[in-house]
Amino acid sequence: MKLYDYLDSGNGYKVRLALAQLGMGYDWEECDILRGATRTPEFLARNPNGRIPTLELDDGTFLAESNAIIWYLAEGSPLLPPDRLGRAQALQWMFFEQYSHEPYVATPRFIVKHLPADSPRRAELPDRLERGRAALAVMERHLGAHRFFAADRYSVADIALYAYTHVADEGGHDLSPYPQLRAWLERVANQPGYRPLMARPARRVASPAIA
Amino acid sequence: MKLYDYLDSGNGYKVRLALAQLGMGYDWEECDILRGATRTPEFLARNPNGRIPTLELDDGTFLAESNAIIWYLAEGSPLLPPDRLGRAQALQWMFFEQYSHEPYVATPRFIVKHLPADSPRRAELPDRLERGRAALAVMERHLGAHRFFAADRYSVADIALYAYTHVADEGGHDLSPYPQLRAWLERVANQPGYRPLMARPARRVASPAIA
Repeated sequence: MKLYDYLDSGNGYKVRLALAQLGMGYDWEECDILRGATRTPEFLARNPNGRIPTLELDDGTFLAESNAIIWYLAEGSPLLPPDRLGRAQALQWMFFEQYSHEPYVATPRFIVKHLPADSPRRAELPDRLERGRAALAVMERHLGAHRFFAADRYSVADIALYAYTHVADEGGHDLSPYPQLRAWLERVANQPGYRPLMARPARRVASPAIA
Repeated sequence: MKLYDYLDSGNGYKVRLALAQLGMGYDWEECDILRGATRTPEFLARNPNGRIPTLELDDGTFLAESNAIIWYLAEGSPLLPPDRLGRAQALQWMFFEQYSHEPYVATPRFIVKHLPADSPRRAELPDRLERGRAALAVMERHLGAHRFFAADRYSVADIALYAYTHVADEGGHDLSPYPQLRAWLERVANQPGYRPLMARPARRVASPAIA
């Protein structure tokens, strides 16, 4: 398999973390998203939505959307709950992550880390951080009664939510009001096969950029 | 089962459409989202994220997030692809729907239909409609080579994308530039067990609102 990715992307990190914990090897091609590497005709032929991560399977099929990719990788492994309700609860939190969490936890980090200090998009930060706090409070409430997000075990739902939550401070979030959430972050970081966000995969190929 | 819902919600409609096509009975409780019925302490105990649709299962478990709910309902039925790659492709399009489509196709419709004509949120419309056109173009490209979104068959991915696409015009989108997409809308509307968005379910209970 070959993963088209960008090292600092939490969405890409979900896939790298799942691959590591499943013991799967892969080639890794870094796409410079800040220089348009996901908007070239060549890349759009892989994923018409022009986003990383995109996974190329051994038969040449391309799979996009981080949470769909880790679901695919985890099928038949302990990372996917074995029962119907557990799978649905994992998906519930993964859709929560993409709709109610990522735009308000990941996007502020992108604006702060990757856009110029005078970017007009900085005006979005107060509203995004407020909605992000609401998402973090929903997680805190759940973790007051559960060790993990779905089926009382570590699963793809934890991988999906961990990726941007553990670096939420880089976008301006303060995690100190969420003790249950901080304890969960530690539980995830102590899982077998854990790897940190910025650990660069070995088999690297550089991808052509537009500019 | 009991579905907490709001008739005009496309997310709720996904669940009603899946239930109808699967031939499953349910009780239906309408929550007036415009009057805070999903932010009462009683409702937040069902879904701490305070959103409809939320499905109460027969054992009292609550399941949230429209796409997770229809996945749960469809397991073991023809609405879920039987193979691992087909399931992943269905999920790819369902995550696309929640991240790249719903905020730009459904939210404009909500702003236009449900907020006052002088709402400051109308200023969001040009940007949201532009991103919505990008999402519709991605769908059009896919449908140029496929009859449905995943596994070449009608599935939960089509239900997820149909719900807000078929009423995109109510938010200001013009579907005339997307002939493949319009043909797919017709294919979906011709599926056995189809029911329209505004068909009110029979077994109705009114939910208490805040204001």
